[in-house]
Amino acid sequence: MAKYAIGVDFGTESGRAVLVDVADGRELATKVHPYSNRVIDEKLPDSDIVLEPDWALQDPNDYLEVFKHTIPAVLQESGVSPDDVIGIGVDFTACTMLPVKADGTPLCFLPEWRQNPHAWVKLWKHHAAQPEADKINETAHSMGEGWLDRYGGKISSEWFFSKTLQILDEAPQVYNAADRLLEATDWVIWQLTGVETRNACTAGYKAMWSKREGFPDKAYFAALDPRLENVIDEKMTRDIKAIGEKAGELSEQAAQWTGLKPGIAVAVANVDAHVAVPATTVAESGRMVMIMGTSTCHMVLGDEEHLVPGICGYVEDGILPGLFGYEAGQSCVGDHFAWFTDNCIPAAYESEAATRGINIHQLLEEKAAQLNPGESGLIALDWWNGNRSVLVDVDLTGLLIGATLLTKPEEIYRTLIEATAYGTRVIIEALEENGVPVNELIACGGLPEKNKLLMQIYADVTGREFKISASAQTPAVGSAMFGAVAAGKSAGGFDSIYDAAPVMGSLKDESFMPNPDAKKVYDQLFAEYMLLHDYFGRGENDVMKRLKGIKAAARKA
Amino acid sequence: MAKYAIGVDFGTESGRAVLVDVADGRELATKVHPYSNRVIDEKLPDSDIVLEPDWALQDPNDYLEVFKHTIPAVLQESGVSPDDVIGIGVDFTACTMLPVKADGTPLCFLPEWRQNPHAWVKLWKHHAAQPEADKINETAHSMGEGWLDRYGGKISSEWFFSKTLQILDEAPQVYNAADRLLEATDWVIWQLTGVETRNACTAGYKAMWSKREGFPDKAYFAALDPRLENVIDEKMTRDIKAIGEKAGELSEQAAQWTGLKPGIAVAVANVDAHVAVPATTVAESGRMVMIMGTSTCHMVLGDEEHLVPGICGYVEDGILPGLFGYEAGQSCVGDHFAWFTDNCIPAAYESEAATRGINIHQLLEEKAAQLNPGESGLIALDWWNGNRSVLVDVDLTGLLIGATLLTKPEEIYRTLIEATAYGTRVIIEALEENGVPVNELIACGGLPEKNKLLMQIYADVTGREFKISASAQTPAVGSAMFGAVAAGKSAGGFDSIYDAAPVMGSLKDESFMPNPDAKKVYDQLFAEYMLLHDYFGRGENDVMKRLKGIKAAARKA
Repeated sequence: MAKYAIGVDFGTESGRAVLVDVADGRELATKVHPYSNRVIDEKLPDSDIVLEPDWALQDPNDYLEVFKHTIPAVLQESGVSPDDVIGIGVDFTACTMLPVKADGTPLCFLPEWRQNPHAWVKLWKHHAAQPEADKINETAHSMGEGWLDRYGGKISSEWFFSKTLQILDEAPQVYNAADRLLEATDWVIWQLTGVETRNACTAGYKAMWSKREGFPDKAYFAALDPRLENVIDEKMTRDIKAIGEKAGELSEQAAQWTGLKPGIAVAVANVDAHVAVPATTVAESGRMVMIMGTSTCHMVLGDEEHLVPGICGYVEDGILPGLFGYEAGQSCVGDHFAWFTDNCIPAAYESEAATRGINIHQLLEEKAAQLNPGESGLIALDWWNGNRSVLVDVDLTGLLIGATLLTKPEEIYRTLIEATAYGTRVIIEALEENGVPVNELIACGGLPEKNKLLMQIYADVTGREFKISASAQTPAVGSAMFGAVAAGKSAGGFDSIYDAAPVMGSLKDESFMPNPDAKKVYDQLFAEYMLLHDYFGRGENDVMKRLKGIKAAARKA
Repeated sequence: MAKYAIGVDFGTESGRAVLVDVADGRELATKVHPYSNRVIDEKLPDSDIVLEPDWALQDPNDYLEVFKHTIPAVLQESGVSPDDVIGIGVDFTACTMLPVKADGTPLCFLPEWRQNPHAWVKLWKHHAAQPEADKINETAHSMGEGWLDRYGGKISSEWFFSKTLQILDEAPQVYNAADRLLEATDWVIWQLTGVETRNACTAGYKAMWSKREGFPDKAYFAALDPRLENVIDEKMTRDIKAIGEKAGELSEQAAQWTGLKPGIAVAVANVDAHVAVPATTVAESGRMVMIMGTSTCHMVLGDEEHLVPGICGYVEDGILPGLFGYEAGQSCVGDHFAWFTDNCIPAAYESEAATRGINIHQLLEEKAAQLNPGESGLIALDWWNGNRSVLVDVDLTGLLIGATLLTKPEEIYRTLIEATAYGTRVIIEALEENGVPVNELIACGGLPEKNKLLMQIYADVTGREFKISASAQTPAVGSAMFGAVAAGKSAGGFDSIYDAAPVMGSLKDESFMPNPDAKKVYDQLFAEYMLLHDYFGRGENDVMKRLKGIKAAARKA
């Protein structure tokens, strides 16, 4: 009798469930449900409370609605009986965190806190905690905290304790009222199982925890703020579950929401990029998985522990148990191209695309594909949204060099793609120089599906074969795989993610091989990119930061 | 009885005549005539002969057609009797040169030469003589030629001997067949008067001549090429007429073409930018005239001789007799904005402009005017077409820094305007640092007429009052003034351009004063501009040149 698992992927704008055959990873049904309150970045819902710039909140009720709408829908669409669904897994954006009461009720569900922005979910791209991140970094540096090296020497404003400290700084009453502070991914698993658990992935990548050393010690938290001294024991836990474990069993209530049978296995919470790794068959070192969307997240497994300056972090067991999971990122990839098509495409191109019945990206790809590498005479630094790896600097900005009066839009477009490929090469070289090999690239996400030129450029720039995930919804499939692992072999699933990966994961047959001639040209261009990268990114000319300062002053004027 | 003068301005695409009242400079009639063969940059007319890249030719017959069409038309439109027209002056693009026979017949009029591209007029923007310019510069450097300093240390590929040497290199038979080599502006005066003359302006600015030293000596020309040793005496002349002199009188034939009376005074040939100076009332040192169109030409008079590195050149008597005329240039101004609107304006902006019945420049100006200085966070190097002054380097290219995902088209547009204003400030500072004062700016040409934001930005960036020529066709009016001076006071004109300037020249009442707060912000931004200008422009990082090299190789691939 066939067995099935369900994966639920919580994105920035919507949630998606996929029902997968455990025998081969085949996707039988998919359902997307948009969040009613989407990203809350202007006003709190049903109120006149205006948010400050850089805020980004969400409503946890939207996550529950995803379960209630999508899981019954995939059951119905596939015709699969709930009796044959053995497990469920979940992945989420991160760090996306919220304050809740001891029973799991989000503070923002309670009338007395609903009008306070700090009572809501802080989404990953909530960027208002930079002062707190600065304090976290300065304090760690001055106290010589060794764990900082695991994160390339810098903690991001997006991460767990930056957001926590912002709550404490700006709304101490919310901090006090919160019995628990946790990642949304752990919160939804709590809602499914009725049991609070914490996962190693977000604890490791976003909350400075490691399997060997645990969290930073109390003295460090006390140095940040005396009220924070016991944050771990008061509002979190030191009991961190490894990725691939079972979090618990589906509760009666969650069974009612979803139409699944109570008691089926629920996997420990996970993160979107990280679950994508086994879904693309990757369960060993040396194969980098890139989740390419608005931004790109780079994941590579390593057999050994290495410090790599400028990566987002590495976590033992953080992606797969028994291996070190290295993560890096580029903060502006799809967003880069979207900015360009929204702001820089002449009407003539729009009409040409419309006349030919193709979209503007297809038209640009077609025109850009006719150019040889280097033929535009252009080069860009892909920093329109700052630089995550390896410079870890949100105040860097975009640069374009080489324009002439004959420069065409498709040349700029191609240059922006090339720039993001150089950004990936910087990350690969940083990993390899520090002992983490990267022999092959595997992409998933919206971009590589749509843009063959981009794939070829990445292969040419990096000099490595580039493959694509077979699934258009890789993270959801990855979550379903962890659901099957949580169920275990006895229930028709797998005892380990290493057993599941080759069976349920998959790649497309097509792959992109580097062209040696193109690689030669790109080697020259990459040398130019690095010269500019270091000149503008490592302090020799801080014009980008000074322009941001002038801009901030001018906006006030 | 009122007296009138006619000025004829030969531009890149068309010629224009204006009939002006000598008493007050009032323009009674104007007529434009487009060149039938416009700019010849793909194929020779009536042939399949394809031109190389960077070539730009013209047909001298088009110049004669301008006389034949425009002068009768302005006479008719104004109702002025030919009896009351006392003189005619002409200005031209430069260096725009051609090979002719001893009687003035252009080689390209002769069937035996018509199929040879070198027999045609080489337009100012013919850019195929760079190897020859390099040789001219290298030879002058190695021989320690002192005249090179008058041109800021570098001769342009656009200038007279670069083009002459290209003819000799590539078509020695054309060089041999040419009895005379001359500027088109001198050639059209020859056609009007029947007498060959040469003017001090083009001789000085484009052909290395000076009043005190004459041309470079024979040894220098022989070092360039032995066949060139006697080029001055064989194909040119050492008899150079000062600006403001009379070249001759209108011939019977030219009187038939134009409907004017034979025998009226014809002024010595002149250049478009240079004749604009007295037409904007400027006849003294310290007031810079900027002719702003696709590119900008900067003219300032000085009482003394000073070497200014990186300017285009200075010529004694080159603009007005008795003063040193300093000329500098920016090779990409209006072209910059045209490139931007042609290639980077989204369809939504086009429709907004169309809906509101304004053009895209007006829409962008309106949106950009709402920004404070510095508010965009952007800065650009205005080198889309290389840099004329003060770096004199055609291989430099454009740069834009500071873009984010929120950057809007109007921010880039304003940044490009600001970049050209910084470029002007660099020129002003170079002049002042070397002893040539610049206290006030005066603009003429299409751009300042149309764009008040641009004017204000120039005033703010330079910290100087900025005025505008009253005439929309300043050069043509300036030529008419020189026509009135050639006629002399006895004929109803003037004995000197100094007498004519205050009477016939004029400025608008409106002027733009620098805003001190804006100036402060622009001082900060200008410091950033200079840092980038020197880093990319003075050899610290020659990435722009290397990208051009990679581009050239890629185009061949």
